[in-house]
Amino acid sequence: MAGCARRPVQLRAAGCGRDRVRALPPSDQLDGAGHAVAAGEKRPHRAGRPLRHGRPSADRVRRRAHVPPRGAQSRRRAHCGPRIANRGLTTFDLLLIGYGNVAKRFVSLLEEQRATLARRHGLRARVIGIATRRSGGQYVAPVFRRTGPARGPAVAGAGVRTTLDFVSDACVRDAAAARKRRLVMIETTTLDIARGEPAISHVRAALSGGAHVITANKGPVAFAYRALARAARRANRRFLFEGAVMDGVPVFNLVRETLPGVRIIAFRGVVNSTTNYILTAMERGRPFAEALADMQAQGVAEADASLDLDGWDSAAKTAALANVLLGAAITPLDVERMGITPETGRLALDARAAGRRLKLVASAVRVGRRIVARVAPEELPGDDLLAGLDGQQNAIILRTDLLEEIAVAQRSGSLTQTAYALLSDLMTIARDVLNRDAPAPPRGTARATRRSPPPARRRRSL
Amino acid sequence: MAGCARRPVQLRAAGCGRDRVRALPPSDQLDGAGHAVAAGEKRPHRAGRPLRHGRPSADRVRRRAHVPPRGAQSRRRAHCGPRIANRGLTTFDLLLIGYGNVAKRFVSLLEEQRATLARRHGLRARVIGIATRRSGGQYVAPVFRRTGPARGPAVAGAGVRTTLDFVSDACVRDAAAARKRRLVMIETTTLDIARGEPAISHVRAALSGGAHVITANKGPVAFAYRALARAARRANRRFLFEGAVMDGVPVFNLVRETLPGVRIIAFRGVVNSTTNYILTAMERGRPFAEALADMQAQGVAEADASLDLDGWDSAAKTAALANVLLGAAITPLDVERMGITPETGRLALDARAAGRRLKLVASAVRVGRRIVARVAPEELPGDDLLAGLDGQQNAIILRTDLLEEIAVAQRSGSLTQTAYALLSDLMTIARDVLNRDAPAPPRGTARATRRSPPPARRRRSL
Repeated sequence: MAGCARRPVQLRAAGCGRDRVRALPPSDQLDGAGHAVAAGEKRPHRAGRPLRHGRPSADRVRRRAHVPPRGAQSRRRAHCGPRIANRGLTTFDLLLIGYGNVAKRFVSLLEEQRATLARRHGLRARVIGIATRRSGGQYVAPVFRRTGPARGPAVAGAGVRTTLDFVSDACVRDAAAARKRRLVMIETTTLDIARGEPAISHVRAALSGGAHVITANKGPVAFAYRALARAARRANRRFLFEGAVMDGVPVFNLVRETLPGVRIIAFRGVVNSTTNYILTAMERGRPFAEALADMQAQGVAEADASLDLDGWDSAAKTAALANVLLGAAITPLDVERMGITPETGRLALDARAAGRRLKLVASAVRVGRRIVARVAPEELPGDDLLAGLDGQQNAIILRTDLLEEIAVAQRSGSLTQTAYALLSDLMTIARDVLNRDAPAPPRGTARATRRSPPPARRRRSL
Repeated sequence: MAGCARRPVQLRAAGCGRDRVRALPPSDQLDGAGHAVAAGEKRPHRAGRPLRHGRPSADRVRRRAHVPPRGAQSRRRAHCGPRIANRGLTTFDLLLIGYGNVAKRFVSLLEEQRATLARRHGLRARVIGIATRRSGGQYVAPVFRRTGPARGPAVAGAGVRTTLDFVSDACVRDAAAARKRRLVMIETTTLDIARGEPAISHVRAALSGGAHVITANKGPVAFAYRALARAARRANRRFLFEGAVMDGVPVFNLVRETLPGVRIIAFRGVVNSTTNYILTAMERGRPFAEALADMQAQGVAEADASLDLDGWDSAAKTAALANVLLGAAITPLDVERMGITPETGRLALDARAAGRRLKLVASAVRVGRRIVARVAPEELPGDDLLAGLDGQQNAIILRTDLLEEIAVAQRSGSLTQTAYALLSDLMTIARDVLNRDAPAPPRGTARATRRSPPPARRRRSL
């Protein structure tokens, strides 16, 4: 087992003709000595003691299944097997598809939060593979590298030519984790605004391979939410995408987790930081180009700035929100769309002079059985909540049946926030898996109950 | 069993010397023919078939415990027993302590949402007892009324003199539901701002009797959060209180459910509708008394308006937020407090003239190991998110470690919103109980998994 603790210090490129060698930063090296633990997980329902006659009595099995032994620690041991009990952690395997700034920050955030994740969520994560457009797919975890060609490079196996192949290959190689619902694909590739690909195909491949999917990519939700949600339900896996809109500030999770039974009727919001920053700057007399250059320098604007300026980014977010919150089945192409130009600056100045504010407003509303979705500059009264959003601030106002209007606002955006969105989705999956794997609640007397609260409950309490 | 379907049409007063008889409105009559189902729940782990030799084989027990039969329907039957499978619902018993406007709206909301709760959450609720200050405790569900004196009034049993006795008595009478974690106390009594009683005692009694607790009362969280949360953990029951601040707009649930791993460093907000309405009205030149009369006429102001005006209501909410979100252990008496008076109107007018706004701001921040909490009128710059809150709007801005600032705002308040807070907490408890009672996830092949998604997962998906 000593080999398992070996840390990878370099990765080689696969299938792209070049022989690039690069050091893996220490923060990415998440695959330390944990394989012994993972192996221990393969027998989660063995109490860890040898069976006396090769087969347990009915009473003993029944006792293990329903009535926990006294004391949380011993119950935990009965459930997870002795090796886990020592560590008390459940390992999730991560497959990073796309490895740009967001994914890199996610990996470093995982490392920063490692102690908290372990202590408060009983969760440990290791990156098993990374795929980038330039370098192809590469296995990072030694256990998978060693299953490749005996002396070949540490890359995906034969027949793996595309990122899509890599996703499928990884699901097969890590089938043990996939079966236990502990394999998660983190999708952060660049969005093709016209089709939502290749992200949609990646999501499909991962779900059908038994992996959960987390994405910060608007494409899958904006173009194919209904089909992918159905695929996830059928595969009994989660498909989460909190990072697609307003970074780590909860919108989708807010509605799903905290507003059960509430029907969203409509929404409107400011969801693109670049255009809001430019509009605010122009109100103060700064030129369009200068404000745009600011956003590009800060890395906030999309690589192709026209995606922001022409309203494509807002339209994709609008479609995503409408699909998930209003039950629509639209794409960004169905969103009526008008962006901002240097000429919009004059309108912004005029509005400000009249005590009003010009904002690029994204909205959708249900009209009969149709969804009307729209992105356009709108002049808002000064006391509108959206009017107060300066610079990179974003906000969404939800109109609901039971709670009238609720607003959630983000006062600033950053890479860390998007990375946190991925992390919070990972914690949602972990909570889900751990809660469902936990033993049934005690059915004894109140006295016995008080003595032995199950550990998972403790974690969730505020 | 025919008697179980009988609906109560009247309640008699208990122990208060008067013989008031009042009709129970149809919307409160939630205890229809469901007792057969409840009885069926008593054997959740029986597969519903008689055992051939009085004792199952080890293999059969093991199979039932871990490997679900093919198809969701048959798994559900194996888990819940045949009577539940037919209905597919889990019944929660509710004990209403306090029966004012909020509790009444909660009961009618339950009725309005009955179909949704059943279809989407597999949940059914029935009120088993109601306690009010004027009438004492009264059992509503026939099954409990009949366990009282044979021909006596339909009230709590002998020795039940106070509401507190009634809570304990109900937990004993409905011990079957309490053991199965399906008894919930809904606490909506009036707050004694100096001590947080009697709500705190009610919460303790319910938890120690095995009931979950939901409250819209600020008292327990503001005065004794840490002790009550500990009691809930020990009893393995939930203690939820979303309605205590900003009605049904999620604040506590937002942080607990959607911001795992995020540390709240400070918060500030406008959390009292009455004072914000009065300040907004005075800015527009209306007199203090007239604006206050508006709020009293609408039923928004507290019964004793000085609780709003002197900042007590805001201070209680500040203490509640600080205790839960910042890990403080303070009471409303520890909150530095300044309210509003008719003279504040001049300051509000001056601020408005200078492009600024005067708001009653509640805030708390951690300074070293101390929590500094404060309620006071503050002059805010016009572009502050709180400055934009007009009339009865409320908002809270959370300062966090990972996500910088997040704001959540309520654009209007109503009885329905507070009632919804209770309902959303009930759904949280139901989800928790149902998820933990659900069978373990399938551990077979991906193929088998796809064929049989467990029903609980379907409900939670967006």
